[in-house]
Amino acid sequence: MTHAPVISLLIDGRSPADPAQALASDDRGFQYGDGLFETARCRNGNVRLLDAHLQRLRAGCERLGIAFPDELRLRTEIAAVCGQAEEGVLKIILTRGRGGRGYRPMPGMTTTRIVALHPLPSIDTSTPITLRWCDMRLGRNPSLAGMKHLNRLEQVLAQREWNPSSIEEGSIEEGSIAEGLMLDTEGELVSGTMSNVFIVSDGLLITPDLRYCGVRGVMRDEVLRVAAEQGIAVSEEPLWPHDVDHAKEVFITNAVHGIRAVGALETIRWGMGPVTQRLSAIVNC
Amino acid sequence: MTHAPVISLLIDGRSPADPAQALASDDRGFQYGDGLFETARCRNGNVRLLDAHLQRLRAGCERLGIAFPDELRLRTEIAAVCGQAEEGVLKIILTRGRGGRGYRPMPGMTTTRIVALHPLPSIDTSTPITLRWCDMRLGRNPSLAGMKHLNRLEQVLAQREWNPSSIEEGSIEEGSIAEGLMLDTEGELVSGTMSNVFIVSDGLLITPDLRYCGVRGVMRDEVLRVAAEQGIAVSEEPLWPHDVDHAKEVFITNAVHGIRAVGALETIRWGMGPVTQRLSAIVNC
Repeated sequence: MTHAPVISLLIDGRSPADPAQALASDDRGFQYGDGLFETARCRNGNVRLLDAHLQRLRAGCERLGIAFPDELRLRTEIAAVCGQAEEGVLKIILTRGRGGRGYRPMPGMTTTRIVALHPLPSIDTSTPITLRWCDMRLGRNPSLAGMKHLNRLEQVLAQREWNPSSIEEGSIEEGSIAEGLMLDTEGELVSGTMSNVFIVSDGLLITPDLRYCGVRGVMRDEVLRVAAEQGIAVSEEPLWPHDVDHAKEVFITNAVHGIRAVGALETIRWGMGPVTQRLSAIVNC
Repeated sequence: MTHAPVISLLIDGRSPADPAQALASDDRGFQYGDGLFETARCRNGNVRLLDAHLQRLRAGCERLGIAFPDELRLRTEIAAVCGQAEEGVLKIILTRGRGGRGYRPMPGMTTTRIVALHPLPSIDTSTPITLRWCDMRLGRNPSLAGMKHLNRLEQVLAQREWNPSSIEEGSIEEGSIAEGLMLDTEGELVSGTMSNVFIVSDGLLITPDLRYCGVRGVMRDEVLRVAAEQGIAVSEEPLWPHDVDHAKEVFITNAVHGIRAVGALETIRWGMGPVTQRLSAIVNC
């Protein structure tokens, strides 16, 4: 069995002697998924869009009633972990802490901080990828919508539906599927399993509004910002599968890989479109 | 800060030297809530309804594609942990194991086993309790319905809505609220935050059918079984708040405390009803 490699790891500011024995079994992240996470792109010690990641984390903590840790200390830990490699994926996890009376948190809990750097997967982001539709649906709950919280069974089950034909996740070999699109239980388009989705239709750049579920990606916000700056008309609104079927262009976004053009979805094929090309040139730098 | 006390703890069969440093930070239970749990009543080394708990755990593992561990070994660990106290609450957690490529599990992962004994909360189960309605709703997803999985943010947020007036959870002081009832996002009654709910109406014992969400409690099944054995007509069907408002009797169930009669919900009051009394006498032994 292989474990996900970690280049550098700090738990509550300390590097564990043995990462296999590092966390408390009564941590509420483990017991209930009672926490949040961020995944960011790290290059030469710099974290791309770090302020936006920390802002989303802080907003999530506020919604869940989790104490946001001292920001200077967190930034110091991030800098220490990201200084370990030229390229990498930064993962930050915050949980409500340890213990409590069952589901009920107790006052004054100490937030658990995990800051880890993982190797960057080698992916060719310039070639359009193939998507599939997932059977697994996302439950609707506005109280949790938008947050990158630790309750991710739906995404895990969605990714179990297909085997990427290549061992290198997201590689662009003939026939390999890089990502799956997910609908909510009412059939509305939400996102990919680990990405947000955009379509270009009637000259408009549209992405699902995520009012019921889904993660409000940092890269999603960045793409909306850059597009508006470029004079491209943008809209966040409900989308359905037929909107994708009839789209002129489709792309997905996440914080690690930026924009990835979609070339195929089931029987539909797209070329690299002008809006995708224009935004990729700015965002995927 | 107080941590939840643990009387005895085995992680993958071993008693950790330091429970605060016991788990791998890449365990998928922690990363994604990718696992299941059971909470059972333990007395003089015996676990009440153990076969039913293990059966539910096995069924949940099958649905999630998690390898169910060797049952004899698991039973041996449960016996070792439960032999440590006259009374206690057994908690079993199984996770899919460590690592993987993001959400995607890898083949051949080794299930993580946590078997822990906690003190039994001292609760007077003979006095009717007071409930409230929670504002927090449960998202609908039939793919996850019924399982006691580790994605429990909704329950955590629901319990944050009120403070039990007494420090002793579930105690029956004037004005203290022992449990909250939860609706799904469409307004249908599902359960308590940590219990199932039954009503008696028109001579019928009814509990929500949990087709969209909620946990199919081991004690819920036991009560349905005992009631049928006693010649009480039972039904699992959709229920709504007004069904509770007009019920003749209301009670909640969980594996630790059995049946607890409900005496009050907002402005409604109930006495101890005959069906609740009859079933409690058999189940709460």
